[in-house]
Amino acid sequence: MLSDLKQTVLAANQQLPHYQLVTLTWGNVSQIDRQHGLIAIKPSGVSYEAMTADDIVIVDLDGNVIEGRLRPSSDTATHLVLYQAFPRLGGIVHTHSRHATIWAQAGMDIPVLGTTHADYFYGDIPCSRPLTSEEITDDYEKNTGVSIVETFRRRDIDPIAVPGVVAYGHAPFCWGKDAEEAVRNAVVLEEVAAMALATRRLNDHIRLPQTLSDKHYFRKHGADAYYGQTDATME
Amino acid sequence: MLSDLKQTVLAANQQLPHYQLVTLTWGNVSQIDRQHGLIAIKPSGVSYEAMTADDIVIVDLDGNVIEGRLRPSSDTATHLVLYQAFPRLGGIVHTHSRHATIWAQAGMDIPVLGTTHADYFYGDIPCSRPLTSEEITDDYEKNTGVSIVETFRRRDIDPIAVPGVVAYGHAPFCWGKDAEEAVRNAVVLEEVAAMALATRRLNDHIRLPQTLSDKHYFRKHGADAYYGQTDATME
Amino acid sequence: MLSDLKQTVLAANQQLPHYQLVTLTWGNVSQIDRQHGLIAIKPSGVSYEAMTADDIVIVDLDGNVIEGRLRPSSDTATHLVLYQAFPRLGGIVHTHSRHATIWAQAGMDIPVLGTTHADYFYGDIPCSRPLTSEEITDDYEKNTGVSIVETFRRRDIDPIAVPGVVAYGHAPFCWGKDAEEAVRNAVVLEEVAAMALATRRLNDHIRLPQTLSDKHYFRKHGADAYYGQTDATME
Amino acid sequence: MLSDLKQTVLAANQQLPHYQLVTLTWGNVSQIDRQHGLIAIKPSGVSYEAMTADDIVIVDLDGNVIEGRLRPSSDTATHLVLYQAFPRLGGIVHTHSRHATIWAQAGMDIPVLGTTHADYFYGDIPCSRPLTSEEITDDYEKNTGVSIVETFRRRDIDPIAVPGVVAYGHAPFCWGKDAEEAVRNAVVLEEVAAMALATRRLNDHIRLPQTLSDKHYFRKHGADAYYGQTDATME
Repeated sequence: MLSDLKQTVLAANQQLPHYQLVTLTWGNVSQIDRQHGLIAIKPSGVSYEAMTADDIVIVDLDGNVIEGRLRPSSDTATHLVLYQAFPRLGGIVHTHSRHATIWAQAGMDIPVLGTTHADYFYGDIPCSRPLTSEEITDDYEKNTGVSIVETFRRRDIDPIAVPGVVAYGHAPFCWGKDAEEAVRNAVVLEEVAAMALATRRLNDHIRLPQTLSDKHYFRKHGADAYYGQTDATME
Repeated sequence: MLSDLKQTVLAANQQLPHYQLVTLTWGNVSQIDRQHGLIAIKPSGVSYEAMTADDIVIVDLDGNVIEGRLRPSSDTATHLVLYQAFPRLGGIVHTHSRHATIWAQAGMDIPVLGTTHADYFYGDIPCSRPLTSEEITDDYEKNTGVSIVETFRRRDIDPIAVPGVVAYGHAPFCWGKDAEEAVRNAVVLEEVAAMALATRRLNDHIRLPQTLSDKHYFRKHGADAYYGQTDATME
Repeated sequence: MLSDLKQTVLAANQQLPHYQLVTLTWGNVSQIDRQHGLIAIKPSGVSYEAMTADDIVIVDLDGNVIEGRLRPSSDTATHLVLYQAFPRLGGIVHTHSRHATIWAQAGMDIPVLGTTHADYFYGDIPCSRPLTSEEITDDYEKNTGVSIVETFRRRDIDPIAVPGVVAYGHAPFCWGKDAEEAVRNAVVLEEVAAMALATRRLNDHIRLPQTLSDKHYFRKHGADAYYGQTDATME
Repeated sequence: MLSDLKQTVLAANQQLPHYQLVTLTWGNVSQIDRQHGLIAIKPSGVSYEAMTADDIVIVDLDGNVIEGRLRPSSDTATHLVLYQAFPRLGGIVHTHSRHATIWAQAGMDIPVLGTTHADYFYGDIPCSRPLTSEEITDDYEKNTGVSIVETFRRRDIDPIAVPGVVAYGHAPFCWGKDAEEAVRNAVVLEEVAAMALATRRLNDHIRLPQTLSDKHYFRKHGADAYYGQTDATME
């Protein structure tokens, strides 16, 4: 079982350079086995080319390393907070993909400007609230997760309908039912972020009409979805 | 006959990733056999790499599936409206290519700013009118086609001279005498959209002189064309 | 002799997609044999992948086809005017490379903003004057060359020191002592155009100091050049 | 020993096209053997594809060629000044990578706008002061180094904490404990420069909070670093 999970997480991590979402080693993917409370995650600072399934680290929800010779990603604590707070999450991905990171650096939500966005994210993609100095110096990675969770809760955003965030000053986190869907959402977020950036230069106030946003989201998600061949979220 | 048509449409769909016009599965190409009233189109949500000629779906002009195991593209109804309204169209392509989509999201026509544009599109590439809420909730994909057709008719634009549109808030549709020419026009539209975006930043009012636009269009199209080796629209 | 010339021109044309300077077939390279007054040039509308040395067309300085089964590039008349007016030109390239074309569409010179520019172009890269309506409708391609030549003469620009131009509303032409150098200058122009575009967004009035421009140009060109291994213009 | 050094420097130079940091031959990497006072550096104007270890030139700290058939990079004198002034530098890289060069051309520091920057550069990446006309005409390459060193000293910037600079009007120089780390910093600088450029368009005054900058820098550098597997600067 852990062997399959590691293989899945290895493959998902290797998708990051394939989709040009990462520079150097700036990205990591994890997937959780909810039944056993175990998470497989990328080791810290290892290149995607050299990585093997054996390098993938298994941790429990408290961050204890259960299996693996290497140190887990330095962002592991962020993943754990998100898995704990949002029980329907099965996979999480963090990258510094260029255009999503630009919105994070600008400290701004990515507004819904087109149907490409609405196909995958129901509403604006939030920029999380800034961390306090105390949160930064004490348990930073955990508090990055806390700030994301609080942002979704305070603003009443459903993390299943909006499967991603740009962390203030930092970079995006995305998620999904498993690692593969999380990576797909990271691909979408990067493309949507690039398009929104340039759209704002041509037209600084336009937004996608709500009915069009609803239509696109719900033709791909939920009971009435009719996109793809077999299920609501299939590509 | 259907076998050839499917093969042609398969090859045209595979050109989309080749020309970097698509992310994930966000694009589809169709071609019509006018004699038999049959259209071959990409199946919904299938990757370009995995797709085979057998996966291509054959539908009639009313959208009935005539041949094929898979569901046709969710945008099929839009293609059908365009084939019905514009009888000289032989192929249609829809993508979310980045720069053309930016103009769609901005809700703006792409103005003729250079001869690259004028070589293929005679005049501004229109942004279609927004759909009404009723059009969105009821038969959305069909009404996307209707809004495009109405935009061309109201503004008296010849769809043969301007073989493409950016659908308001959504993304581009292009067409041509066959699927191959439609894909070529989608390549041109994306490049022209990128150039126009940056040109507007350097100079926000310039337009290509009409005589220069005429010259470039008509050296490639119509009775007096002299570009290429054998016919007016050859690359 | 013509066989070598064709091979050289074939190779230079194939460098255009290698350097990502062309979309579809939007670019052509020629080289002149000054001794015999013969020019080898790309055929019109043929793909770079399919092209063979036999497809390269030989024309004389009046544009008569001397050898070749295919029609020469539709831009041949422009090349001829440049070869006639500027006797030290050995090779010419025309592309619609994205960023150089953006400056052409904006109708603006590319200012010297950095040493990258100064390494290859001594001074601003001019945008040629607009053609008159008469020049466009009557012998357009020839008059494109005429407008370039006049721009250099009126503004007293040395075509050897500034081996390129952006043709108003159209796209760049570059040249050099041979086809290979012309292609290299087209690569530089495209990169310089991209950098200048973004530099202007950060700082809308800065220019490279003249002494720095002089230094960089003359360390690569002329009697005192000291860049590279064997000669002044070697890469 | 020199054979290993040459091999290392060859490999580092070949990383430049791999990371898309160079156009044509616009980039060079060196590494110093501090014990023997010898520097291995790229030859001038040689392509990365054709280069072999034998082409790498060995010079001493006064610029005398100790080994090698070819002329060393025309930027050698700049490297030497940096090695002399900053004794902890082990490798240096110079490129004209697009976005870093844009900041150099704009004559502007690259501000810390995100954690990607803070992970590798502790504080703004300075734009060096302009050279005087005398410095340009007399011993230009050496004075480029002098202007960089003075910029760091006058502004009290630690070259180990800020391992790179954009040279006014010119392009970036980066460094590290060896050639490999220098190249890695050049990759980071280019990405950070691209992100900062676009961030400034969305939000023209935001900066990364100092505590967040500190946190990211020190989790990767110094005694308390905890990123990666074995040492503080490992990727």
